[in-house]
Formats: sequence, structure tokens, C-alpha cells
Amino acid sequence: MIVAFQGETGAYSEDAAFQFFGPSIQVKPCENLDDVFRAVAEDKAQFGIVPIENSLEGSITQSYDLLLDSNIRVCGETELRVAHCLIVNPGTRLDSIKRLYSHPQALGQCRAFLRHLNCELIPAYDTAGSVKMIKEKRITDGAAIASARAAEIYGMHILARSIENHPNNFTRFFILAKQDSPPSGNDKTSIVFSVKHRSGALSESLKTLALRNINMTKIESRPTRQKPWEYNYYLDFEGHREDKIVREALVELEKTSLFHKVLGSYPKAK
Amino acid sequence: MIVAFQGETGAYSEDAAFQFFGPSIQVKPCENLDDVFRAVAEDKAQFGIVPIENSLEGSITQSYDLLLDSNIRVCGETELRVAHCLIVNPGTRLDSIKRLYSHPQALGQCRAFLRHLNCELIPAYDTAGSVKMIKEKRITDGAAIASARAAEIYGMHILARSIENHPNNFTRFFILAKQDSPPSGNDKTSIVFSVKHRSGALSESLKTLALRNINMTKIESRPTRQKPWEYNYYLDFEGHREDKIVREALVELEKTSLFHKVLGSYPKAK
Repeated sequence: MIVAFQGETGAYSEDAAFQFFGPSIQVKPCENLDDVFRAVAEDKAQFGIVPIENSLEGSITQSYDLLLDSNIRVCGETELRVAHCLIVNPGTRLDSIKRLYSHPQALGQCRAFLRHLNCELIPAYDTAGSVKMIKEKRITDGAAIASARAAEIYGMHILARSIENHPNNFTRFFILAKQDSPPSGNDKTSIVFSVKHRSGALSESLKTLALRNINMTKIESRPTRQKPWEYNYYLDFEGHREDKIVREALVELEKTSLFHKVLGSYPKAK
Repeated sequence: MIVAFQGETGAYSEDAAFQFFGPSIQVKPCENLDDVFRAVAEDKAQFGIVPIENSLEGSITQSYDLLLDSNIRVCGETELRVAHCLIVNPGTRLDSIKRLYSHPQALGQCRAFLRHLNCELIPAYDTAGSVKMIKEKRITDGAAIASARAAEIYGMHILARSIENHPNNFTRFFILAKQDSPPSGNDKTSIVFSVKHRSGALSESLKTLALRNINMTKIESRPTRQKPWEYNYYLDFEGHREDKIVREALVELEKTSLFHKVLGSYPKAK
């Protein structure tokens, strides 16, 4: 089984793939998030894994945008505890660090700690990739922020552990495939829709779920890009799309929305 | 009158400040968005201006987070048409560009054009600051993405204009002050609230507006950071907080929410 993820070997997405599928999978590193979707669409991987939201920094909006444009389904979710380390080339001391490299989400998740260091923050496309970069370029006045596993893989030194702003630092990942999952009895469903541009249109759409006591666990709005200040709404709620009340709610939602699409139903993360 | 903005001279936020207040204001460049809030709180500027959302790339989440933590009010909004230019040192040709520097929002807004260039994208904290940087470091195999005004200020060359993905590229800015604005007859109000963690709690809160035909123009969710997967919701809707129906809706909202705060009422952008 091949699972595509974004980033270099040692990335948190790779950790999440091992957590969800177990240690015996084959992983396929991809440069960008859209490459992960493409790998699944073109059968280069049976599954993909993409970060969707972090409990401190919020949504990974590019993942949401890619879900809209693609026919790939969400077939699972997993939540990874993210503990960041300050990683340097062996020999680099804390007081000689002038620049810090990592993914903007990781820099944000460590903002409180980083404020004390008084360094320049340099956003990169990847956490583990930043470790690899400071190693390959032999940067001795800089550090990267990534996982302990990334430090180990690249033979680098950890100066500080658990530097995230808050111990409640989790990233939620979506598992992608060509089909979603059959009912397990404890599922969630993700959808995207847009509403007519008039008073109360969004609350009317949300009411289709509320009236049936369907528990909404997340709402995210993203610009439609067609007209300024019009949005697509992404919802996660409890239940499977084959459940009777979910089916009824989706029929009602179709009446109140301009457009809607089921992204997938999948077993809830443990 | 002093208006604080984030970025270097030539930033889009500075353009937006001139658009809103006219050309005779004094502007105060700040390194970070929180410095803009601090400048207003500490009376170093009467007003601040921060980007809140872009019509292609979505919300500027850091601005939302700062509004939650601060006592500063929203007293106005303005929408700026954002046209990006590809900017280089005089003499640099299109085919010699290897690296592109700009704010991640600007890189995202030009994604389609940039794909053709096949360059490395290097995220920076500022658009105009990237122009200044490639000038000062005399980078001849790189380009920056910023406004035509930024190119002019730093005496740089424009290789391409209007390189954004879509002509509907607008950024909406909030004007910040210690007080919000009195009713003008055509206002909007911004609030933030969180709801009890139970089925239908969010739709119940939104219903308090819908039942009164108050037109919601934006919803944004951000993690509370206290507990994973619990959110603060930011709403913009039409009406002033002193309007009778808005006052009634806010009283009702208080009953259904765990916490709520009015960020400010202000005249709608023209």
C-alpha cells in the first residue's frame, strides 16, 4: 500500500500516515499538497494524507481549496499530537542562532517561545525540509523547527523540545482516496456548499442540520473567487451520508444552497 | 493624524490608508500586525489599518486573532483593488529569474501566473519589503511581487503587470481605533463569540440574526486554543450595534453563547 504525503521524509504528515495505517506502509513524499491529490487521482498512490486544521493555528486553507476542485474523497481522519523541537547542526549553541526556518504553521505554533529568541523567522514550505536544508547548507547560525523524528533522521541536534505555545497542539489530517468509507456506526461527513446571496441564507442552510439534531463539528468559509465576498462553506458533522437523517438533511440543503458536494463520510478519529 | 500599518513604505496597507483617509495623513510603518494594534493602544497612532480578508486567498487569520485579544475597536472598513506587478532590478530579464520573493498571500494570489515561470517561491513577511530587499541585496536572478507604487518608490523595473489569478482581487481592511463609529445609516457590525459544545449550538446562535432578517456578510471560525476543535466564530453583519433589532439580537446571542464581544460598528465600505 502506497500513501502520498506532502513534505520531506520526517514530516508530520508522514508521522500521521504511520499513525493511521501502521508502520508497514510505503510512503511517497510529494513537493506540494496538490501533488498529493494528483498522486491519488493518477493511481500512483492508493491513499493520500493532507493536514486540514491545527488546534492552535486553524485551517490549512489550501487543503480545503484542493478538496473543492478535485474528485478525490475523504475516507478517514486522524489527529496527531504535534510536539516541535528546536533543531540545529551539532555544535550550534542557542545564543548563536540568528535565523529560524520552518513552515509558517509551525512558526505560528511556537510564537511565544520564539519571541524570546529574537531571531529572524524565515517561512519555508516544510518542517522536515528545513532540517534537511540547514544540514545540507551547513548553516551554523540558524535553526529549524520540526519533529524529534526529523532531527533523528537527518542526524541533527535538538536544543529544545515541546516549544509549541500550548500542549494542546494537535493537527487533524484527512485521508484521501478515490472512494470514501462505508458506515462504521461512528462516522463523520464533510461537505462543501454555497448559498444564495440574501439575508439569513447561511443560517437557513445550517438549520437543515440543526433541526435533525445533527452535530456540526466544524465550519470553514473560503472565498468562491468568482465574486468578491461570496463564500463556499465547508462543514463537518457527525453521521454517515447513508444514514437516513443525513440523507434527508442533504436533500433539504440542496434546496437552500446554490451548489453542494459531499466530500466524503469516514470513521471518526479515535 | 497618524495611521499605523504593517509593512514597509509602498505596502498595500499604506495604499489602503491613503484610499480611506486621503493623501494628507502621516503614516507609521510597523514591522508586525501586533505592532499596529500596540501603536493604537499606546496612542502612538490615532488609527491603525490591518488586512482582514482577500477575495481570492481568504482571511488574514492573524488579524482575527489579534482582534480577540485586544481592546481596540473596528471603526471602519475599506476595500482595495490589488493589482500585483513582477518587479526586478533594472537589467534583469524574465528568463533569468530563479527565485520569487513576496508575502505568501501575494504568492497565492498570483499562483497561476507563477506556475509558468517555474521559479522557487520564497515567502516573505511583506510585499514592498521584498522589493526593498532585492534592491538592497542587488539580487539579479530574483524578482519580487508588489504594487506598481512599490516599484516606483524603490526605483525598480516592472516586468509584468496585473499578474493576479483573477481581476476580482480585492483586499478588505479594518480601520482600528480606541472607539468604533457612531451610526451612519449604512453600517456593519463585527462580533466574535463561542458556543456551547452541543448539537445545533452554532445554528441556534446564527438564528438570532436570521429571525430578525439581519444580513450576515461573513463568518470565520478560529480555534479557541484552550481545547482542540473548539472555535471562536467571527461574524460580520449589516446594521449598527445601536440599532434596535441588532441590540435585541445581541441580547439573544448572549443567551446562546459562552462568550461574546462586539468588535465594532462602522460605515460600510463604498
